[in-house]
Amino acid sequence: MDNERLIFLTNDDSYLSKGFRAAVNLAREFGRVVAIAPDRVQSGMSQAITINAPLFLRQVEATDGVEIYAFSGTPVDCAKIAFDHFFKEQRVDMVLSGINHGSNAAVNVMYSGTMGAAIEGSFYNVPAIGLSLDDHAADADFEGAVKYGREVIAAVLGAADRLPRPLCLNVNVPRCAAADIKGIRLARQTRGFWREDFYARQDPQGRDYFWLTGAFHNAEPEAQDTDEWALKNNYVAVVPVQTDMTDYKQLKALDGVL
Amino acid sequence: MDNERLIFLTNDDSYLSKGFRAAVNLAREFGRVVAIAPDRVQSGMSQAITINAPLFLRQVEATDGVEIYAFSGTPVDCAKIAFDHFFKEQRVDMVLSGINHGSNAAVNVMYSGTMGAAIEGSFYNVPAIGLSLDDHAADADFEGAVKYGREVIAAVLGAADRLPRPLCLNVNVPRCAAADIKGIRLARQTRGFWREDFYARQDPQGRDYFWLTGAFHNAEPEAQDTDEWALKNNYVAVVPVQTDMTDYKQLKALDGVL
Repeated sequence: MDNERLIFLTNDDSYLSKGFRAAVNLAREFGRVVAIAPDRVQSGMSQAITINAPLFLRQVEATDGVEIYAFSGTPVDCAKIAFDHFFKEQRVDMVLSGINHGSNAAVNVMYSGTMGAAIEGSFYNVPAIGLSLDDHAADADFEGAVKYGREVIAAVLGAADRLPRPLCLNVNVPRCAAADIKGIRLARQTRGFWREDFYARQDPQGRDYFWLTGAFHNAEPEAQDTDEWALKNNYVAVVPVQTDMTDYKQLKALDGVL
Repeated sequence: MDNERLIFLTNDDSYLSKGFRAAVNLAREFGRVVAIAPDRVQSGMSQAITINAPLFLRQVEATDGVEIYAFSGTPVDCAKIAFDHFFKEQRVDMVLSGINHGSNAAVNVMYSGTMGAAIEGSFYNVPAIGLSLDDHAADADFEGAVKYGREVIAAVLGAADRLPRPLCLNVNVPRCAAADIKGIRLARQTRGFWREDFYARQDPQGRDYFWLTGAFHNAEPEAQDTDEWALKNNYVAVVPVQTDMTDYKQLKALDGVL
């Protein structure tokens, strides 16, 4: 039908991930799906863009109402080519990025390729949802993420005309069984940071190498209005995301210094 | 001397860039310099981290008061290995990221590897400055960026004890001759976005490929308190950067929707 919705889908775990397939099926419930997703894992790619290399695109699936393309770029590149090349003349009703294997709560929103793509999508004035499950396993159980993702998508599509733009949601679903999830909570981004414990070794040629391995430190574990609190207490955390990074308090403090 | 300052330096254009060398000389005026910079160009890498690959580190220079290491990771990886591996027991007085070849004003703050590293440095409670020149040329003239970079660094070091933390500054220097720069302006991040014009071709095997090429659209060209306005009017723009991406207005609008 002509007025069928168009959902743009991407992620950062590649078009081969289990979470991506769950998202394809979920998005299809709401309209026609065009997916452009990385052709390899692009986790932790943040808002990165590819400036200095050509990017390859190929269709990997085309069935009734679902087109899937694999792209050699970052998640943000996927969003950019979708809107600036594919969808130039078409109205897109929603951007869905995910379902990510692993939480993007707290400061992870800044490192996440899944959220990078969702944010980029919101720059095209389309409601964007980044959907993540707090489980990194390749075979994670996405039942709860699908159930509550469905609820969030339906609510956003229903209210899209009266919500301000840009609109970008960081939705994180706890790892527990779907039946144990207590509901959805609007939340703010938890303050905190990662500290890394670099795993240092030497390669067969004697060169030093390091693997990044770290842990998140929650700077406000007692606060109950944060996304980390919601996740820990078996709620789905929904944080709306904005991109004015100006530190207005610091602007005042700097007056007279600079 | 034991109480000499320690400046951590990184960038995204690699340790081989002209802007990096200018930053080494500038930072050396303020103390001992330890630089860990990407071993290749990492422009547009945002806050990206390397999760799935080993990272190689090698010393490329060690002279009086200056140590330089080339690292195979992203700019953020450089900051992480600096603080979580190198500097564990040492007080670091400042993070300097740059001098970048190209402006990181407006929404570029989100795509920039230079700013990604500066932001990451500020997570370690050290004053961080991302310094960029509005000129992409490999042989750009950094005289103005050095002159005003020096002024900003001196001011921040002088006021470091009374400024709140985290403290991260996005400093952008206009392309004009140093003598034509009118001074420093505190500013906020300009609202705007990039739109891409993908350059589509086929490779010798007939595969479709695309190059990203775009233009920035300033959504508020008349506003005079923005970093874009400052740059266009030959001022150095200084935007303090914060990392709470919660959209608090949208939180209120979503009340009742979710």
